[in-house]
Amino acid sequence: MTLSASLEQIAVNRSFGGWHKRFRHRSAALGCDMVFAIYLPPQAEDGPVPVLYWLSGLTCSDENFMQKAGAQRVAAELGIAIVAPDTSPRGTDVPGDPDGSWDFGHGAGFYVNATQAPWNVHYRMYDYVVAELPSLVEANFPVTDARAIAGHSMGGHGALVSALKNPGRYRSVSAFAPISHPTTCPWGEKAFSRYLGADRQSWKAWDACELIAALPEGVERLPLLVDQGEADGFLAEQLKPADLEAACAEAGHPLTLRLQPGYDHSYYFIASFIEDHLRHHAAALQD
Amino acid sequence: MTLSASLEQIAVNRSFGGWHKRFRHRSAALGCDMVFAIYLPPQAEDGPVPVLYWLSGLTCSDENFMQKAGAQRVAAELGIAIVAPDTSPRGTDVPGDPDGSWDFGHGAGFYVNATQAPWNVHYRMYDYVVAELPSLVEANFPVTDARAIAGHSMGGHGALVSALKNPGRYRSVSAFAPISHPTTCPWGEKAFSRYLGADRQSWKAWDACELIAALPEGVERLPLLVDQGEADGFLAEQLKPADLEAACAEAGHPLTLRLQPGYDHSYYFIASFIEDHLRHHAAALQD
Repeated sequence: MTLSASLEQIAVNRSFGGWHKRFRHRSAALGCDMVFAIYLPPQAEDGPVPVLYWLSGLTCSDENFMQKAGAQRVAAELGIAIVAPDTSPRGTDVPGDPDGSWDFGHGAGFYVNATQAPWNVHYRMYDYVVAELPSLVEANFPVTDARAIAGHSMGGHGALVSALKNPGRYRSVSAFAPISHPTTCPWGEKAFSRYLGADRQSWKAWDACELIAALPEGVERLPLLVDQGEADGFLAEQLKPADLEAACAEAGHPLTLRLQPGYDHSYYFIASFIEDHLRHHAAALQD
Repeated sequence: MTLSASLEQIAVNRSFGGWHKRFRHRSAALGCDMVFAIYLPPQAEDGPVPVLYWLSGLTCSDENFMQKAGAQRVAAELGIAIVAPDTSPRGTDVPGDPDGSWDFGHGAGFYVNATQAPWNVHYRMYDYVVAELPSLVEANFPVTDARAIAGHSMGGHGALVSALKNPGRYRSVSAFAPISHPTTCPWGEKAFSRYLGADRQSWKAWDACELIAALPEGVERLPLLVDQGEADGFLAEQLKPADLEAACAEAGHPLTLRLQPGYDHSYYFIASFIEDHLRHHAAALQD
């Protein structure tokens, strides 16, 4: 397989018999250069493998998950590739938070398509992670079109929303400590009011609880696997797993919500349970 | 167990059913405040467990190994605590490299006791990791005095030297890509000429190859487990595993040297093989 000339490899590391690689490319959806990482398990040398897309949380890049989650060991066993995009458009041409804070702008794209100036020029992370990046990956690497999606915090929100908005596009979905109900929490209200504007009605298209409630009859409801640390300092104000539980119960949406005593919001929590998530995805991807 | 008042806990994360904790304390050996991390496996709640000391490489702190190696999963299975110290004395009172480089001074203590001014005031990492830190750990945490030691690069050198200089103090030793022959490589020559002075004879007490050659008859030779990536850019000039192999062959010192094709010097390499090292140590620690 020959790499597209538009993909510049910027790092490569052998990992558990496979390869971790980082690439820079020009994103049409975002109008800027982007970096993503891919883990190719040893099985990819013998033929195409399915892909798990991992969406990271606030302030992260492609590197946090690849360096800290310990996912490659299990991915190498199961024969799953993992793709980790960045969390926002980047670069000096891309406006960030005017206040310089870490919960909006660079590192905080919230996986939506912004409609409001100046954000609507570059902040189209939804189009990037759901369409542009998978097309690029499927054209350039030994992978199938069997896709799963997962993420953490803001990226957990992104994974749930991406799957709920695109029935049939992903075989499975899971999240660690997702921002479950962003239309009603401070992180979501700050981001959505800027990216999407004052009309709160328009926010609902980007909120897992609202999407679960609004799924049409007859659409297959993809089961949700969610892990949440009970010692997570963001649980009550920002993450609201109880709202997700209520929305799923009300709509009859299958949810496995595991509250993990003592665990916080960090990658120590993710690493402790990533194997369960990978096995959950492998079962669906290799079905 | 009550913590000594001199230990200030600065972070705690639940991890694989156990706890990752970071502490700040005043080090008498180093004359400055130091931070170290400890991973306590679930078994430590039922009684004391053995301890693996992990020495990191150039530029690292206590955090690199704990965040990137994926060791906690296996440590939790095997019932081993892991202690990760910083790699040098730190602080504004501690002189660093006058040239501001990353291979000497802060983050680059080389696990020696410096004899030359101004380094001899604070740079006594050998005393710290071999004596002061284990005493502190054994007095304050549910651990036994069964100790193992391992490390990476500069820390691999530190682990080998610490074990070779103290027969009986460690049950087992291993290293990833150690600086095997520091008296003959640029990193070692730069550090030793400053920390230890111009007399190259004095450097030999801090060089694994020299120590292996000089071990007295009748002293038990602790088997060495060493992994080395063949795509490691530092292999030929700085790490010199062939010198270690020759020294062990000459002295009859037991060595398992595994050359790993395609692997580099990064934590992706360490993570890929840390499980083997932990099982190697567990076998000796639980003997």
